[in-house]
Amino acid sequence: MEDVTTSARPVISASELLEHWQGHRKLTRRVIEFFPEKELFEFSIGGMRTFSALAVELLAIAAPGLKEIVTGINIPFQESTENFKTKAQLLAHWDDSTEEINKYWNFLSPEKFHETNNLFGQYNFPVIQNILYFIDNEIHHRGQGYVYLRALGIEPPFFWER
Amino acid sequence: MEDVTTSARPVISASELLEHWQGHRKLTRRVIEFFPEKELFEFSIGGMRTFSALAVELLAIAAPGLKEIVTGINIPFQESTENFKTKAQLLAHWDDSTEEINKYWNFLSPEKFHETNNLFGQYNFPVIQNILYFIDNEIHHRGQGYVYLRALGIEPPFFWER
Repeated sequence: MEDVTTSARPVISASELLEHWQGHRKLTRRVIEFFPEKELFEFSIGGMRTFSALAVELLAIAAPGLKEIVTGINIPFQESTENFKTKAQLLAHWDDSTEEINKYWNFLSPEKFHETNNLFGQYNFPVIQNILYFIDNEIHHRGQGYVYLRALGIEPPFFWER
Repeated sequence: MEDVTTSARPVISASELLEHWQGHRKLTRRVIEFFPEKELFEFSIGGMRTFSALAVELLAIAAPGLKEIVTGINIPFQESTENFKTKAQLLAHWDDSTEEINKYWNFLSPEKFHETNNLFGQYNFPVIQNILYFIDNEIHHRGQGYVYLRALGIEPPFFWER
């Protein structure tokens, strides 16, 4: 297969990738908002985690993961739902993460995307794969949140609205 | 924000993006396989579509969408579950699409990713956004399939196994 890495203009630029990620994060924030307070922390299907617990996982990955990539300091994955008792707390932390991600992104050099990072001291892959994993994992869990909302009789936001 | 589009090595190359997409498609294929025949065509939650119907949507988007991008011939979106009555039919079509996608991908020039394509005559965006939508939409619906499997008491494949 022809490799087009030598092109002057890349398939996607770093700033476009950030915009793509933050667009997805904006939609996930809306999904959190769509949940009634009680069901956000209590409702689940088939023994799965609640959507608040899934959102806490996303928060534990996104900004901390990017910070690790940028600083090179590996920190064990820390996911604790203890500090999140209300939707407002979740959303406030979400907004803090949005700013942190924008801040750390500025420190990603073009070469950095291809360096290997041992994410949370456990997952040793190129940085671009770390970041695509952050995005994909969020879409995956948010899709699950859509089923929870439908099961609760709530129409979720349109998937393509960011 | 610093724009790094001028870097010699892009954030992700076209061939890496294809590998990423096909890795996701491989996982979705496994999720189809994990469903019992009957539940694949009948089970759903909250009035949503069955996982076979979601898979048919993915099939109607992936290879036809890429073909449209490459040929420049806009065809209305055609999604019909009529031709899919068994899991084996779905999987066979899935494998045909895998080959078609690999074939058409060779015709994507580096510049093409930034040209605008009016996908299915309806969604007018740069090609890179068309393709990211194909991938994201698949992850989204596959995440919903994971909830269906859990609700059926079936442990889904690991998300990170491609």
